[in-house]
Amino acid sequence: MTDTPGSALRDLRERRPLVHQITNYVVMNETANATLALGALPVMAHAPEEVEELASIAGALVLNIGTLSRHWVDAMLLAGKAANAAGVPIVLDPVGVGATTLRTETAKRILSEVDVAILRGNSAEVAALAGIEAEIRGVEAIGVEAGNAAIARAAAERLGIVASVTGPVDHVADGSRALAVRNGDPLLATITGSGCMSTALTGCFAAVRRDAPLDAAAYALAALGVAGEDAARTAKGPGTFHAGLYDALYALTPDSLDERARIEPL
Amino acid sequence: MTDTPGSALRDLRERRPLVHQITNYVVMNETANATLALGALPVMAHAPEEVEELASIAGALVLNIGTLSRHWVDAMLLAGKAANAAGVPIVLDPVGVGATTLRTETAKRILSEVDVAILRGNSAEVAALAGIEAEIRGVEAIGVEAGNAAIARAAAERLGIVASVTGPVDHVADGSRALAVRNGDPLLATITGSGCMSTALTGCFAAVRRDAPLDAAAYALAALGVAGEDAARTAKGPGTFHAGLYDALYALTPDSLDERARIEPL
Amino acid sequence: MTDTPGSALRDLRERRPLVHQITNYVVMNETANATLALGALPVMAHAPEEVEELASIAGALVLNIGTLSRHWVDAMLLAGKAANAAGVPIVLDPVGVGATTLRTETAKRILSEVDVAILRGNSAEVAALAGIEAEIRGVEAIGVEAGNAAIARAAAERLGIVASVTGPVDHVADGSRALAVRNGDPLLATITGSGCMSTALTGCFAAVRRDAPLDAAAYALAALGVAGEDAARTAKGPGTFHAGLYDALYALTPDSLDERARIEPL
Repeated sequence: MTDTPGSALRDLRERRPLVHQITNYVVMNETANATLALGALPVMAHAPEEVEELASIAGALVLNIGTLSRHWVDAMLLAGKAANAAGVPIVLDPVGVGATTLRTETAKRILSEVDVAILRGNSAEVAALAGIEAEIRGVEAIGVEAGNAAIARAAAERLGIVASVTGPVDHVADGSRALAVRNGDPLLATITGSGCMSTALTGCFAAVRRDAPLDAAAYALAALGVAGEDAARTAKGPGTFHAGLYDALYALTPDSLDERARIEPL
Repeated sequence: MTDTPGSALRDLRERRPLVHQITNYVVMNETANATLALGALPVMAHAPEEVEELASIAGALVLNIGTLSRHWVDAMLLAGKAANAAGVPIVLDPVGVGATTLRTETAKRILSEVDVAILRGNSAEVAALAGIEAEIRGVEAIGVEAGNAAIARAAAERLGIVASVTGPVDHVADGSRALAVRNGDPLLATITGSGCMSTALTGCFAAVRRDAPLDAAAYALAALGVAGEDAARTAKGPGTFHAGLYDALYALTPDSLDERARIEPL
Repeated sequence: MTDTPGSALRDLRERRPLVHQITNYVVMNETANATLALGALPVMAHAPEEVEELASIAGALVLNIGTLSRHWVDAMLLAGKAANAAGVPIVLDPVGVGATTLRTETAKRILSEVDVAILRGNSAEVAALAGIEAEIRGVEAIGVEAGNAAIARAAAERLGIVASVTGPVDHVADGSRALAVRNGDPLLATITGSGCMSTALTGCFAAVRRDAPLDAAAYALAALGVAGEDAARTAKGPGTFHAGLYDALYALTPDSLDERARIEPL
């Protein structure tokens, strides 16, 4: 009997895992609301004095390096180590890696000092962290989709991690398997924080699929993608799409998610 | 001639009090917008260099300890003392008290160093601060509603404060009186920050009812509750509910609030 | 052949300039989404370690002093100097200047240490910075509109800057020209951050009109004003107006902007 995204969603709504998020100022409200709408419980806290207590009792820990500053990095490392010690899965969103030295160094430091389960980023970010920027340039030759699949596979292998690369089609890979997720809508790219939301939802699913981080990553992208498809149906632009996205996440059912998720092995 | 929530709303819209809020990153935009939609003027500022100037000229000061960090605690204490010196009422929202040592210590420190007029939290938070966690367990025996009423009364007595305990039914109490507020909608629990909004609105009403903090607390919960009922009518989920909540707060009139507020003496 | 707001919007959507924003916590999500909806790319970053890298490659830099704290001031000065060295135009929003000593000193310090292209504020803020508070009082005699025009002109002359004064009618001026912008809707004043959004959009247009900051300032106010008019048409209050505002910014076309912008020389 194989697992499905709908079963994971059912588990999530029964268990309501606490998802501890140390994330950027721009999207805190958005990722907290997406977490709640899906059915998990967000807790947003960054003080070094309390992150260990929270991370160690959480279902998952989400680290997001947008709007970084030094004392937040310290908190991320403390939280990450506490999560590791307690067996709590960690999802890292390396927002803007490659754009500044601070971002690149911070993301690399987190990856080296903390055991991250899932790395969720766009192709440029994931490639920069895996040291495979050359592959990015090769994308023009093989096409974006094949390129992103290659980046996900290479990053997963080099970093020993689940790599979750979002784009027009999303790709997730661990050292042995790779999946494509073909859900979503172009309006997702018109609001800030949709990437960060996908990371937060990855944390939600990781909390209920600790032994299957690859599947958790794919389920999260399918859930956000299906919700995006639903929200796009009545949206008149980015603002009404944004509001509709929470409605759609909340309205998702295990059955509708199973029916509509387009997760394909590669 | 007794006071009514509608009269207080009328005063608020005439005077447009400045409500100084030192609150958490997740909900700043939301509480500022709720304050504006109701008819007061939000000012969000946390720098130790300026909080005293602002708190002392404000109509009310709101302290909210979500997403705490050390230098924000310093600012809260400075602002609180300035507000006390100027006779400006303070509303405290002890977000997450009991969950971490930092939160518990901070909330207790604020309560001991600053004269707080109204404490607005959920039953677990208020019980933790009043040292009556045992009552929480007793709730199973007497039911949530009677339990929350008991927690509000006990906290008010022990802390010498107006205790405002929100839940499916809200309860407010001072040392002598207790009120239940039976407005609201379950969708309020599906968006992050609805509790923080109720605290911000409590600050708005406290600014125009300085001598009647118990009534101010009840009026605020009735106003948010009625707005929640209105927003729920056309909402398709948490996202459209959230947008509709500001519409409904803005559309509230003194008459409609008086007609629909369900505030009952206990 | 004269330039038009529509041509600038066309350029903006083709070039998709990066607009680096060091702004306040309350509106970060809002200004990022407004920037995206218009067609530019927001980057929000405040760490002293990375602001110089980002500001020097940006199309424009936006500095906004709401929710100030000391280390953010340092970052603003670093970013500002890097932007100046790279020829990147800077837009300053002096939120709350005149209300506290910290705000006033910070805004004055930025103006003295950094070469700001455009100052965008309300009449009280701009007057306070230009040292012409007396003119504000004179407004009662000559009317708000003539008063704001006078403040914009005087500030532009005294500060050697483009002054952009928003109000029921907006006024922009440099040392020689002055323009009135007669777009907008009263609902803009019911949401927090609409002023900050106008500043962010000013940065977007400044990025594609580096040699014409006066026009850039007017185009931005016309774009937000027209979008506000559109959003007001179907809004039921501040919440649905807020969502509709992003829809309307996204739906703006160069032709519709040219047709509806009401920019008039004074």
